[in-house]
Amino acid sequence: MPTQFDPPSGTRDFLAADSEAREAAFARIRAVFARYGFEPLTTPAFERLDVLMGKYGDEGDKLIFKILRRGEHEGTGEADLALRYDLTVPLARVAAAHGSQLPAPYKRYAIGPVWRADRPGRGRYREFIQCDLDTLGTSSVLADAEVICAVHDVLADLGVDGFRFLLNSRRVLTGLLEAFGVPAGLGPGVLITLDKLDKLPPAEVITELTGRGLPPERASSLVGALTAADAVEQIRAALKRSDTGSAGLDEVDSLLSLLAGQVPADRVAFTPRMVRGLSYYTGPIWEVTARGGAWSIASGGRYDQLIAQLGGPDVPATGGSLGIDRILLLLPPADAGHSRLDVAVTIMDERHAARSFGFAAGARAAGLRASVYLGSSGKLGRQLKWASAAGARWALIYGDAEEEAGTVTVRDMVSGEQTAVPLAGLAGYLAGLATGS
Amino acid sequence: MPTQFDPPSGTRDFLAADSEAREAAFARIRAVFARYGFEPLTTPAFERLDVLMGKYGDEGDKLIFKILRRGEHEGTGEADLALRYDLTVPLARVAAAHGSQLPAPYKRYAIGPVWRADRPGRGRYREFIQCDLDTLGTSSVLADAEVICAVHDVLADLGVDGFRFLLNSRRVLTGLLEAFGVPAGLGPGVLITLDKLDKLPPAEVITELTGRGLPPERASSLVGALTAADAVEQIRAALKRSDTGSAGLDEVDSLLSLLAGQVPADRVAFTPRMVRGLSYYTGPIWEVTARGGAWSIASGGRYDQLIAQLGGPDVPATGGSLGIDRILLLLPPADAGHSRLDVAVTIMDERHAARSFGFAAGARAAGLRASVYLGSSGKLGRQLKWASAAGARWALIYGDAEEEAGTVTVRDMVSGEQTAVPLAGLAGYLAGLATGS
Repeated sequence: MPTQFDPPSGTRDFLAADSEAREAAFARIRAVFARYGFEPLTTPAFERLDVLMGKYGDEGDKLIFKILRRGEHEGTGEADLALRYDLTVPLARVAAAHGSQLPAPYKRYAIGPVWRADRPGRGRYREFIQCDLDTLGTSSVLADAEVICAVHDVLADLGVDGFRFLLNSRRVLTGLLEAFGVPAGLGPGVLITLDKLDKLPPAEVITELTGRGLPPERASSLVGALTAADAVEQIRAALKRSDTGSAGLDEVDSLLSLLAGQVPADRVAFTPRMVRGLSYYTGPIWEVTARGGAWSIASGGRYDQLIAQLGGPDVPATGGSLGIDRILLLLPPADAGHSRLDVAVTIMDERHAARSFGFAAGARAAGLRASVYLGSSGKLGRQLKWASAAGARWALIYGDAEEEAGTVTVRDMVSGEQTAVPLAGLAGYLAGLATGS
Repeated sequence: MPTQFDPPSGTRDFLAADSEAREAAFARIRAVFARYGFEPLTTPAFERLDVLMGKYGDEGDKLIFKILRRGEHEGTGEADLALRYDLTVPLARVAAAHGSQLPAPYKRYAIGPVWRADRPGRGRYREFIQCDLDTLGTSSVLADAEVICAVHDVLADLGVDGFRFLLNSRRVLTGLLEAFGVPAGLGPGVLITLDKLDKLPPAEVITELTGRGLPPERASSLVGALTAADAVEQIRAALKRSDTGSAGLDEVDSLLSLLAGQVPADRVAFTPRMVRGLSYYTGPIWEVTARGGAWSIASGGRYDQLIAQLGGPDVPATGGSLGIDRILLLLPPADAGHSRLDVAVTIMDERHAARSFGFAAGARAAGLRASVYLGSSGKLGRQLKWASAAGARWALIYGDAEEEAGTVTVRDMVSGEQTAVPLAGLAGYLAGLATGS
């Protein structure tokens, strides 16, 4: 039951462990993308309304969060700005604005929130992170291969288990429709239905295809070929009967040969039945499934006309997107091993506050996470309880006895063992704790 | 002259060098805050409208970007959500929502954009990064000292030159007004005027004070004491005549003694004339000025009633905020030394594409930034021009001659020197380039 203190519907607060896990993943992703020579781009959260509207179809337009005009115009109830819906329209705008200053080709990545006024549900949020990498300005299949390798390296680096690239090409799909005698007018609808082969039994897909006007025997032979044990061989043979199919096959084979040394063979497969839903793709298309996951965790492809359609320059382009929220769900839970502190420093008496404060600074100088006790209790037990709750590995205790002896007591919070360390040797001792020596 | 491709008024696109510099600064800041045991909090870009409205005064409310209701409600012209205006109201909401799950005290930092519909101007944006750290749930002056030390460490770590903490206390200011016989009703106005001592000559400040109803001789003696060469000594003496003043002085002195070991003495000074504009502060207040800068680059203080006023629990709190945009302006220009690549790999012939693609992967495995040429020219000169534009330190060249010799040519892009490296030795050679050996 939501309370007035919950974040708005479809959005989330990320407390310490989740925030850290997400930020750590972003940092790893950035490092991989940079190794491939992709450069970051950061654009504003909102764009002018006219930049966004009409770019996502009628359904998409309805999901755009619009920002009310301000000041004297607020009363009009009109919007002039809107929260970005994806990172591709801003990319097209930047390519138009900075065209000549940008490197050619322009290889960029962007990691940031986007907003969609979708009905919130399991795994569906109104604010979520998109993580895109794209190369603008080249038709080379090397660029497609680079994007796929970079996404592969990210998933491997994050420790995602048993993921697999499904590879196909829009040209293969077009050739497939030709080879199986699908009338051109039925093509888009047939592809939408074929996309359901993952979820529906073949018979139902055949029924849906005939419902779309495809003669039953053609529907059967098409679905039969796509679902056969030797589907890839059958489809390869069929594609050679069509010029577009042959070109698509060459494209897929070039890509597979570029990936051969970089992506393990069991992690990539030509998958002729894989149809990406979006119609803007023009060349290679791919998606990544994770073990046991019905969802794809990354996807992409070549979209040579889209940037111009979105208001940018007329450049060929290819790219991919990582589903960060889904990927993070596949990793070990974020709070495992989360602790705020390595070293907790007690304050046994106000008289010792400055000295204890200095001990915490010393621990930080050694690279440890450290804080003094900030509560009001003078009791050691209470302060150690705090140290334990903060996940501290060690507590430093300095009271009257230690002052007299010229030492500080270092307590191992796991074993309970205590060591008296002379003040003069504390820096060295803390350095030892930091390096585990 | 803005074009249709510019980002909305008051917002910015950050291309590669700026994006990287900003992200690198955020990473350093996070690392310092974590060493102090502060934990990250990430909240949504927007909040429910009622959470934000009425928290920033009438002027503040006017600067809030409101989000139009959606679907059938869009036509009403009403807003139900709004972009966050700061990171403190979301903190108060989270403290109310998660109170018992949060550590006590709750030490959190947040780095993220906020939005204000201000008139854009030099150094004033409608979308800008706030970087806050706050401790909720303790009245201890140790918490104030921790915040100041953490901000100090961030500024030192980022390499900000010649910065200085000005330290004061609301209690000192209240005591000061008492000690100089300022009638209680005039207090807030007098403080607003005293805040101008940095910009106006003392005579003008005195005039403004008398205009506010302060008897001329009191105005003169107050301004005289605050601007004297021995101002601190005069004020210290005066404060001892007031209970609140004495308490404020004790607070300042405790803070100075805690900071003594951690912040160099020339970087912090008790500054009785420093009045933070915001009236919600209740204890120590501070701001940081940078050499030659009229602006403060960081500021903060104790605000024991604010969290409750903002709708959160009734807890004492202290915190600070870093002006990231201003701080980044003080650092060396971001594009100095920016390059996209370490290693550029030529593609001399499609036949060699897969092998060259593998060389780039090898360079990345050695930790270098590497990419193959993605253009359509087969000319070496053209490809080396690309390598140079990408900032590559080395180019790897593999053509028919290299294929025959079983080598790859490594070109030093600075000296132009070329080395033939046997294929079998390439991994080791690249590792050597990566480590500079």
